[in-house]
Amino acid sequence: MVRPERVTALDLPQAEVPDPDNAAYFQKCLDKLGLVPNVLRAYAWNPRKLKNFIALYNELMLGESGLTKLEREMIAVAVSAANRCYYCEVAHGAAVRQLSGEPELGEALVLNYRVSALPPRQRAMLDFAAKLTEESHRVEEADRARLREVGFSDADIFDLCDVAGFFNMSNRVASGIDMMPNREYHAMARGKSGR
Amino acid sequence: MVRPERVTALDLPQAEVPDPDNAAYFQKCLDKLGLVPNVLRAYAWNPRKLKNFIALYNELMLGESGLTKLEREMIAVAVSAANRCYYCEVAHGAAVRQLSGEPELGEALVLNYRVSALPPRQRAMLDFAAKLTEESHRVEEADRARLREVGFSDADIFDLCDVAGFFNMSNRVASGIDMMPNREYHAMARGKSGR
Amino acid sequence: MVRPERVTALDLPQAEVPDPDNAAYFQKCLDKLGLVPNVLRAYAWNPRKLKNFIALYNELMLGESGLTKLEREMIAVAVSAANRCYYCEVAHGAAVRQLSGEPELGEALVLNYRVSALPPRQRAMLDFAAKLTEESHRVEEADRARLREVGFSDADIFDLCDVAGFFNMSNRVASGIDMMPNREYHAMARGKSGR
Amino acid sequence: MVRPERVTALDLPQAEVPDPDNAAYFQKCLDKLGLVPNVLRAYAWNPRKLKNFIALYNELMLGESGLTKLEREMIAVAVSAANRCYYCEVAHGAAVRQLSGEPELGEALVLNYRVSALPPRQRAMLDFAAKLTEESHRVEEADRARLREVGFSDADIFDLCDVAGFFNMSNRVASGIDMMPNREYHAMARGKSGR
Amino acid sequence: MVRPERVTALDLPQAEVPDPDNAAYFQKCLDKLGLVPNVLRAYAWNPRKLKNFIALYNELMLGESGLTKLEREMIAVAVSAANRCYYCEVAHGAAVRQLSGEPELGEALVLNYRVSALPPRQRAMLDFAAKLTEESHRVEEADRARLREVGFSDADIFDLCDVAGFFNMSNRVASGIDMMPNREYHAMARGKSGR
Amino acid sequence: MVRPERVTALDLPQAEVPDPDNAAYFQKCLDKLGLVPNVLRAYAWNPRKLKNFIALYNELMLGESGLTKLEREMIAVAVSAANRCYYCEVAHGAAVRQLSGEPELGEALVLNYRVSALPPRQRAMLDFAAKLTEESHRVEEADRARLREVGFSDADIFDLCDVAGFFNMSNRVASGIDMMPNREYHAMARGKSGR
Repeated sequence: MVRPERVTALDLPQAEVPDPDNAAYFQKCLDKLGLVPNVLRAYAWNPRKLKNFIALYNELMLGESGLTKLEREMIAVAVSAANRCYYCEVAHGAAVRQLSGEPELGEALVLNYRVSALPPRQRAMLDFAAKLTEESHRVEEADRARLREVGFSDADIFDLCDVAGFFNMSNRVASGIDMMPNREYHAMARGKSGR
Repeated sequence: MVRPERVTALDLPQAEVPDPDNAAYFQKCLDKLGLVPNVLRAYAWNPRKLKNFIALYNELMLGESGLTKLEREMIAVAVSAANRCYYCEVAHGAAVRQLSGEPELGEALVLNYRVSALPPRQRAMLDFAAKLTEESHRVEEADRARLREVGFSDADIFDLCDVAGFFNMSNRVASGIDMMPNREYHAMARGKSGR
Repeated sequence: MVRPERVTALDLPQAEVPDPDNAAYFQKCLDKLGLVPNVLRAYAWNPRKLKNFIALYNELMLGESGLTKLEREMIAVAVSAANRCYYCEVAHGAAVRQLSGEPELGEALVLNYRVSALPPRQRAMLDFAAKLTEESHRVEEADRARLREVGFSDADIFDLCDVAGFFNMSNRVASGIDMMPNREYHAMARGKSGR
Repeated sequence: MVRPERVTALDLPQAEVPDPDNAAYFQKCLDKLGLVPNVLRAYAWNPRKLKNFIALYNELMLGESGLTKLEREMIAVAVSAANRCYYCEVAHGAAVRQLSGEPELGEALVLNYRVSALPPRQRAMLDFAAKLTEESHRVEEADRARLREVGFSDADIFDLCDVAGFFNMSNRVASGIDMMPNREYHAMARGKSGR
Repeated sequence: MVRPERVTALDLPQAEVPDPDNAAYFQKCLDKLGLVPNVLRAYAWNPRKLKNFIALYNELMLGESGLTKLEREMIAVAVSAANRCYYCEVAHGAAVRQLSGEPELGEALVLNYRVSALPPRQRAMLDFAAKLTEESHRVEEADRARLREVGFSDADIFDLCDVAGFFNMSNRVASGIDMMPNREYHAMARGKSGR
Repeated sequence: MVRPERVTALDLPQAEVPDPDNAAYFQKCLDKLGLVPNVLRAYAWNPRKLKNFIALYNELMLGESGLTKLEREMIAVAVSAANRCYYCEVAHGAAVRQLSGEPELGEALVLNYRVSALPPRQRAMLDFAAKLTEESHRVEEADRARLREVGFSDADIFDLCDVAGFFNMSNRVASGIDMMPNREYHAMARGKSGR
């Protein structure tokens, strides 16, 4: 009943010779994750776009930051849930389940983060990310003040905006081209190891 | 009455020694545009973020594409208007006025693109960008079909999603940190040269 | 990080002697499902409410109807997704995964039913359920006509409204009292047997 | 100009022999109210559905509860007004006019309950019911705390959610099948006896 | 339980000597309608504002137009219902009941005009008025074309916009100052003379 | 690319002999402003409507009030921005630029007044005007109390509602008939004299 095996709804011109850097990166993904995330396949038709995407993604999600990697994935999921982006909820919901070891947390963030019993820091972080997603023009100094109260530095606030912004971009690209997630994500990390 | 002279609401740690590539790029902006766009100053505290931003921006807005540069700026403005992002409406409204030579077109896109007498291709393009911004989870095959009917290729559709996505990101970063545009944009290209 | 083990946020007076019919029904659930769904525990403080809920639920979801049991569960999930009801999405998402044998279908309905490649009958059914949930006052004859075109009888339309209505009720009760789903649902039927 | 005399937009199969319990109940309505509410006629094609509806309705609206019968009707109207459900606003608006003896109160709740000078308990009750109707996924502990502050017990909060939930169901069924209220309701209790 | 006897929430400076024209107009209202509509009392503190209001109102609602007086009242009610303006729904709901002789029509327009079985001309008229009220920036040539198809001239379209605009103004003034309608309106024209 | 030279989308019957008062008023506009605002030309087909519009406008925007003329123009722009009315944002954005001598202030109000560093009085004023525009039925005593706290008298509150109401009317008329602003407004007062 579900979608056939294809990455996007678009029929894009593919380079005749694959870009060697990108091919190496795909191999690295296969080795490390056991799959090449479909978002990378979706960008692969244009090697420059793919390189920019990888550089941006890796810096934002894996680079140095006052936000933990799990927190960045939590923002990814809360933003994608607000935008109801199928691709990103599936892929990053799996990441939250894996990084947290709590399958229910991933599920709660995907469905409605307000039901999770989050510590104040992370609740404030997701409230900010949700407001920035749903009505960015109403974000004001009072919203930033609430983040500082629970311990975020100004650099952390920048990173929070940057990650929330990034998924507002990715959600649009994914929905705009009907990007389908790798099927492997669905069953990942559903076990209860984390409790 | 308006905002004091500052780029963002954040007090960010600045590198002691500026990154040489980025410094060179700022000089290039000054030479070519007469100013360094504040968005670049906002990212400058973190040289890696700035490099990624510049690479992504230049590829998207100035690289090869089936969308003209003016069309890409029109998407930028329509997305930013839907999100009511002050920074991006000011900066990219100026770009539309300049590239089109029609100050009223820039104004119309900033305020409500539906009042402009646009050709069908560009109307469809902005309708898609607005829907992708306001309710991305409702974009479906029928929306892509409408773009193909007015002549967009699948690669063009990818680029349209990519540009619309990018400004959904930039709008969030700008609103999240209260980024203020360079004052010079306000008076730029208001003359009627284009009629 | 997630919620502690409790069924709802309310501290309700419990009957000293459990109602015998209800106790028997709970035992039947345990025997058949391996668990007593928390929604039943939530209503148990008031035996008359619980009996009414069970009678209504069983007639609607398991009784005779032109809608299959899977279709009724699909409506449950689409309505609950529109209302972002954590309890019902978890419990009925599991039911769709089980009844369909397609874990991805359950996931897609929970996140955004528009991305599933549904047959026209079921797509029309969910479009109607979503509109009835999100803007019931705009449902008109044209909406019913679209259902008849894909083969729904008037009795089926009644059942569709009845099921969609029921979950609009349950979603409010669950969110109003912060009802938490049984943890067992999360990992149920995630395997790929259905493909 | 208004609708012809019919109960719903559906042409439903009717039982050849009416169910004796339901027939007796209809007679009781006629004796007591002078009419059989059209909602009952709408469900009558399926005797089991009708029985469940009657049992649920009578328990909720007439059974024991810390909420008065008038309060339960006030919730009915506020929920139905938020959903703009013609049937329920007409039928339960009449009930509020009758039970309160204040025709203006019924009118105010039907149109915009915020304009009524309600005591804090009832204002809090309707604010909760409206939020549960319009954005149930945002209802949180703070909302329940506000109810407890004005004197609602946890059992009362359950009943409030239950009644608000019930009308969210009824509103969908009524709008989904275009249920028309009995004409008698319109002129009922419009006099100023209550002042 | 309802509001005390006062016209608005504001304590406004009153002229020491009433304006003679306005006093005469109030007397005319009393003679003709048996009451002075509270909206006039609300404006009376400033005689120039009151004169302008009366002139505008009388021209719009009673002057020459291709729209009948009943149609103009129907627009008044549909706009006020979209804005949930208590004052205008009560006062103009009564006017629709009186002018049409159909109490149910007034009620239907107040609650949800989509349920009335209106002729195509009037349905198109109210759809336009509702869209102009709820999302005026999306009104386009296609919307005007639909009006012309059912027989509206361009002068009629102007009048329709003018009346719909006027009640968008009045609704804001009434809600902004909490204007209460004369109690007499509630019971007016509830009888079934019109059927 | 933009609209052709025409005032509205309607083809309206014009009076054979122009009304002498109105003609004199147009001449006065030309002498004083160098142009006849298109809104006046739009109403000119019906001399009585035009007279009422002029009387109402002049009293509201230029008459005595506790609100300065600039404040009234600020309300005009904030309301028109909420409604995305092209005509009124262009014409009254120019007025704010002129009256304030701050081109950036006009621009900020047109795009998102929340980004301007307004004094508390004017921020409260625009927050009230925006709420009255976007969700008038939720305006309550607490909103008026906030205005009184920053120094507004009850007469000022009336004037604020009156001006905000007026532009809610004008925005609908302008959008309903696709009224185009005089081109001269676009370049007016863009210079930096005010800083």
